[in-house]
Amino acid sequence: MTLQQGNPTNASNSITIRLKLSHQTEVLAQLTTVVGQLGGAIGAIDIVKAGKGFVIRDFTIDTAGEAHIQELIDGIAAIEGVEIVNFSDRTFLLHLGGKIEVTSKTPLKTRDQLSMAYTPGVARICLAIEKKPSDAFKLTIKRNTVAIVSDGTAVLGLGDIGPEAAMPVMEGKAMLFKEFAGVDAFPICLDTKDTEEIIKTVKYMAPTFGGVNLEDISAPRCFEIERRLQEELDIPIFHDDQHGTAVVLVAALINAMKLVDKKYEDLKVVVAGVGAAGTACTKMMMDLGIKNIIGCDRKGALTNSREDLNDAKREYANITNPNQEAGTLKEVVRGADVFVGLSAPNLLDEADVAAMASDSIVFAMSNPIPEVMPEIALKHAKVVATGRSDYPNQINNVLCFPGIFRGALDCHASHINEEMKMAAAIAIAETIDDEIVSPDYIIPSVFNQDVVPKVAAAVMEAAIKTGVARRTKKSDDE
Amino acid sequence: MTLQQGNPTNASNSITIRLKLSHQTEVLAQLTTVVGQLGGAIGAIDIVKAGKGFVIRDFTIDTAGEAHIQELIDGIAAIEGVEIVNFSDRTFLLHLGGKIEVTSKTPLKTRDQLSMAYTPGVARICLAIEKKPSDAFKLTIKRNTVAIVSDGTAVLGLGDIGPEAAMPVMEGKAMLFKEFAGVDAFPICLDTKDTEEIIKTVKYMAPTFGGVNLEDISAPRCFEIERRLQEELDIPIFHDDQHGTAVVLVAALINAMKLVDKKYEDLKVVVAGVGAAGTACTKMMMDLGIKNIIGCDRKGALTNSREDLNDAKREYANITNPNQEAGTLKEVVRGADVFVGLSAPNLLDEADVAAMASDSIVFAMSNPIPEVMPEIALKHAKVVATGRSDYPNQINNVLCFPGIFRGALDCHASHINEEMKMAAAIAIAETIDDEIVSPDYIIPSVFNQDVVPKVAAAVMEAAIKTGVARRTKKSDDE
Repeated sequence: MTLQQGNPTNASNSITIRLKLSHQTEVLAQLTTVVGQLGGAIGAIDIVKAGKGFVIRDFTIDTAGEAHIQELIDGIAAIEGVEIVNFSDRTFLLHLGGKIEVTSKTPLKTRDQLSMAYTPGVARICLAIEKKPSDAFKLTIKRNTVAIVSDGTAVLGLGDIGPEAAMPVMEGKAMLFKEFAGVDAFPICLDTKDTEEIIKTVKYMAPTFGGVNLEDISAPRCFEIERRLQEELDIPIFHDDQHGTAVVLVAALINAMKLVDKKYEDLKVVVAGVGAAGTACTKMMMDLGIKNIIGCDRKGALTNSREDLNDAKREYANITNPNQEAGTLKEVVRGADVFVGLSAPNLLDEADVAAMASDSIVFAMSNPIPEVMPEIALKHAKVVATGRSDYPNQINNVLCFPGIFRGALDCHASHINEEMKMAAAIAIAETIDDEIVSPDYIIPSVFNQDVVPKVAAAVMEAAIKTGVARRTKKSDDE
Repeated sequence: MTLQQGNPTNASNSITIRLKLSHQTEVLAQLTTVVGQLGGAIGAIDIVKAGKGFVIRDFTIDTAGEAHIQELIDGIAAIEGVEIVNFSDRTFLLHLGGKIEVTSKTPLKTRDQLSMAYTPGVARICLAIEKKPSDAFKLTIKRNTVAIVSDGTAVLGLGDIGPEAAMPVMEGKAMLFKEFAGVDAFPICLDTKDTEEIIKTVKYMAPTFGGVNLEDISAPRCFEIERRLQEELDIPIFHDDQHGTAVVLVAALINAMKLVDKKYEDLKVVVAGVGAAGTACTKMMMDLGIKNIIGCDRKGALTNSREDLNDAKREYANITNPNQEAGTLKEVVRGADVFVGLSAPNLLDEADVAAMASDSIVFAMSNPIPEVMPEIALKHAKVVATGRSDYPNQINNVLCFPGIFRGALDCHASHINEEMKMAAAIAIAETIDDEIVSPDYIIPSVFNQDVVPKVAAAVMEAAIKTGVARRTKKSDDE
C-alpha cells in the first residue's frame, strides 16, 4: 500500500488536551481564538469537572502534525488563566495494546461447552479432518482466514522500517479485512528479508490459512516470492501492493475511458515508477488491450537498449514500449493519452500535462504528494485521480482486497488468477452507473457498501469459470 | 495436552435430532422410554412447529459416541408415529467455520477513524516503533498476543495426525487463553516436522508475538526446539505439554503432601512414561527436593546400564534413579510413595497399588483411561488424581498456561524460567486453603476464578525477582 495524506489538519494528527481554565468567560473565548489563529481545528469540547473558580475541560483538536502540536501547546500554555493538565495524541491512544484481538465465536463457561470445543469432543473433529483433509475448510478457521505477511521492507512511503515497525499497518489491514468483508485476517511480520526463507515460512504456515495477502515487500523480491508461492501452494496468494493497486487503477481507467472517445488499442500510456505496483498496473492494462505502454524509472523510459536495467526491468522493457521510445519522463509523456504515476512528488508540471494528447487521463498516485497536483493537471486533462482522500477519485486498494479475498474464500479458490482480478476491476467500475460516471466520479467511495459484495460475486464467478474454485455454491458444505 | 474423556454419555458426543411426532401423548412417552433404554441422556426438548395431527420437536441427546448415535437413531426410527426429519452432531455444528475470529478493538466506520487506525495516521506509529523497537510492546498486539505453534505430531492421544487436523485443538486452546486470561492467542500449524525448520519459522514470526506456546510436538524434537528458541529469542517460549503438565502435577503433589507425614527428600517416586510430559514432571519434582525418582518406559526402569536408550532417555537415566533400580514398572513401583503416570491405560492393578508404601499418592494421568482406575487405587492409596473431569482431582493444564502467560506478558518477560514455573505451581496449590485440602480436593476446578490472577501475580513476581521482567508494574507504559 502507499502512504496517503489528507488535509493540513487531520484526525490522524488529532490530540486531546485537558485544560484547567479559570472560571471567566473570556478565557474560553481567548483559547478558541488562539487555537484558531494557530490553525488548529477544534472538535469536541467536554467538561471533565467544574470546581470553585475553575473548570477542567477536554479539547479535541485536529492538527497538521507534530510540529504543529508543539506550536499549539506553546500557544495555549501562554494564555493567562489556562493550565495544561495533560495532553494525549489520539492516534497513539488508539494504538495502545494494538488494534485487533482474537476472540471466541462461542462461549466457554461450562464443562459441557469445554467438552465440545476442547477435549474430549475436539478429538472427533481432528479425526474427521485427518480422514478428509479438505474438511479443514469446513471445520477450522481456514475457511475464512487470511495471513497478512510482510517483511517490513516497503512500508507505506517509509521504506525498510523492519517487521516490528510494520505491524501497525498490518493490524490496520486486518481491521479493514474484517470491517469491509468479514474476513478474519492475522498479521505475520517476518524477521527475514531472504526470498527463499520467506517462501518457506509461508509454505510452512499455510495449513492454518485459506489465503495469503503479501504486503509491503520490496521489489524485485516480491515478484519471485509471489510467483513461487502461487506455484507451490493451493491457496490464493495476492500481493496487494501490486495487484490491489492494479485492479483499482484499471477500474478507474475503465470508467475514465467512458468519458473520452478513444480505444484501448490506440492509447499511448506512460507509467512513471516500475516497481511492484507499476509493473502490475502495466500487465493489467495490457490485458485491457492497450498496446503502447512506456515505463519510466528515474532515468527515463525503459528500452531494450538500456544497459542499466535489473532483470525485472529488462523483462518489462521487452514486453512494453513497442516503438522503443527513449528519453526522460517529460519527453515521452508528450502526446500520451494516459499518465500513470506511482513514483514521486511533482514530477510533472502544467506544461507537461498540456503537452499530452487531448482528453488526457492523469492518475497521479504518489502519496502524500502526487506527481502533479490535481488543480494543475485539471487545467488540461479530462480526468484526474490520485491516492488522496481529499480530492475526487481516490485510487484506494481498500476497494479491491476485501472483496477479492471474500470471493476467493467463498469458493475455496486455489488461486487468484488474471480473470478474477479483471472481474474485480470491472465490478468496481460497474458500481457506478454509466449515466453518472463523470470526470470527478470514476471510482466509488471506500465506504460504498455495494463494492465488496459485487466484487466478491464477480470474483467467485470468474473462479468457477476458470476452474480454480473448489466449490461452486457459497453454502456447498455448510 | 493429553486427551481426556468423560462419562459414557457426554455433551461432547451430543446430537440434536429433529423429529416429526404424530400427535398422540403415548408417542412422546414411548420415545423418551426408548432413548432411556438405549442409554441416551435427553437434555433440552424444544417445539419447532405444531401442525394438524403432528408436532415437530428438537431433542438434544448426550450419547457415548458414534456407534451409540447410530443405535439411538435406529431405535428412534423404529418407533411408530415418529419420523426423523434430520439430525446434527452438536460438536460438529460448533466447529463449522472454526471457533475463533479476529476482530477490531475500535470501529472503522468513518474517514477519521480510518485515518487514525490506517493511513495516514498509522505512519507516525510505525516511525515511533522504528525509533524505539521496544515500543512494539506498547503500540502493537505484541503485548498481549501468543502464537500457539504445533506441527501436529503428538495431538491429544491421536498421535501424528498432521497440521490441518491439529487445528481444532489449537483453536480450542486459543479460546481457553482468551476466556481464562484475556490473552490473544493465534494458532499456527506448521507443514514441517524438521526441527531446524520449525525453529527458523518460529524465529521469523517472532516480531508479531509476545510469547510462543509450543503444543503437541512429539518428543524428542520438542526438547531441542524449545531449548533453542529459548536461547535465541527474547520472548517466553513454553511447551505446554511438558511444563503445563509439570506445573499442575507439582501443584497437586504439594497439596497431597500436606495429607501425608513424609518429606520430599525421603520420597520414592516412579514415573511411567518419560516423553515430553514425564521428563518435565521429573525435573520439576527434583526442584521440589525429591531425590529418588525412577523413570520407566515400556521396557521398565531407566538405568545407566540399559543399552537401548535414545539421548533424551540416557540423560534422564543419568540424573535420576540414584540406586539404579532395574526391573519392570510393576517391580520398581513396590514401596514407592508416589506414582506418576503419563503413559497408557491399566498398567497397574490393585496388587501393585497395595505394594506401594503406606499413604501412597497415585497420579494416573493417562487419558481417557488411567494407568489404574481411581476406584481401584483408592482401596490402598491415600490420594488419587487423574486427567479426567468425572473424578475428583483433575490434573488439567488449563490451570497453568493461561495464568503463566498472563503473568509473563504483563511484565514483558523475556523468558519463562524454572522459578516462574514453581511460583505458578505454588500459586495453584495455594488457591485451596490448607484447612480444606483433602484427599479428594488437592487441586482447584478449572472454573475456579482465583487461579489465573493468583498464578499471574506469582509468575510476575518471580520474573521480576529473577531479572527476566522488562517492566515491573503492569501499568508501566500504558
